[in-house]
Amino acid sequence: MNHPAHTDEYFLGLAIEQAKIGWEEGGVPIGAALIHRGEVLAVGRNRRVQMNSAIRHGETDCIERAGRLPASVYRECVLYTTLSPCFMCAGTARLYEIPRIVVGENRSFEASEEWLRSSGIQVDVVDDAECVALMDRMLAERPSLWLEDIGEVV
Amino acid sequence: MNHPAHTDEYFLGLAIEQAKIGWEEGGVPIGAALIHRGEVLAVGRNRRVQMNSAIRHGETDCIERAGRLPASVYRECVLYTTLSPCFMCAGTARLYEIPRIVVGENRSFEASEEWLRSSGIQVDVVDDAECVALMDRMLAERPSLWLEDIGEVV
Repeated sequence: MNHPAHTDEYFLGLAIEQAKIGWEEGGVPIGAALIHRGEVLAVGRNRRVQMNSAIRHGETDCIERAGRLPASVYRECVLYTTLSPCFMCAGTARLYEIPRIVVGENRSFEASEEWLRSSGIQVDVVDDAECVALMDRMLAERPSLWLEDIGEVV
Repeated sequence: MNHPAHTDEYFLGLAIEQAKIGWEEGGVPIGAALIHRGEVLAVGRNRRVQMNSAIRHGETDCIERAGRLPASVYRECVLYTTLSPCFMCAGTARLYEIPRIVVGENRSFEASEEWLRSSGIQVDVVDDAECVALMDRMLAERPSLWLEDIGEVV
């Protein structure tokens, strides 16, 4: 794989852009980008509100929008996400054996990082201030939507 | 919860019916049903081929078709699936804390059962002959589609 460290910021920026669009749409501000050897295969965002969806989190929406890919491609990808993945998204990354996940922040939510690492997936947490701010606003202004999104009782 | 044992066969039958439809559509013959206190919330089937989808496995398609539900509902549901769940589908069940999964068979594929049980989810494997036959035919007649579906290199 050929991802110089300086590009992580750029690719995470694409995910953040998606998260902001999602917020403006009235949704959950979490975005993602799927990158194969430096090429953007897809970006995506949580579409619970926009598509009335229970499975379109940032990461799964992004992977869905990348289309059907051979296993060999996933195994050379990096998944960028503004927030630490839930078990659905982590499980999707593990199914397709995506070897590296770059996480914007894990202060607002963290569930799967240890499990992902134990399966051999590299998880790098950036602790990005913009990602933290997006979720701070979400938790303050749309708390029940957030609880719904992570399967917590309101 | 109120699911007499004799209804498992009926609910799994709904999932099998979906799997058969999926096969006839040219797809992956795996189906699912989501049941809440004896009421069918949704049925679904793998739609990789039909929707050109990387995330519509039987279980995730079923959960998507059930729509946005409060966490309290998922926590009283049973998920029926013709085949033992992959990590994406297992992770989705874990995200929403679905307490019980009834699995048609796990001879053709098994990845997540130990992990699900370790998280407190009850996993009951029926070892249904019709489910086994569906996957036997799949592996024999559409092997590369199957490998794509589980993220294995063809």
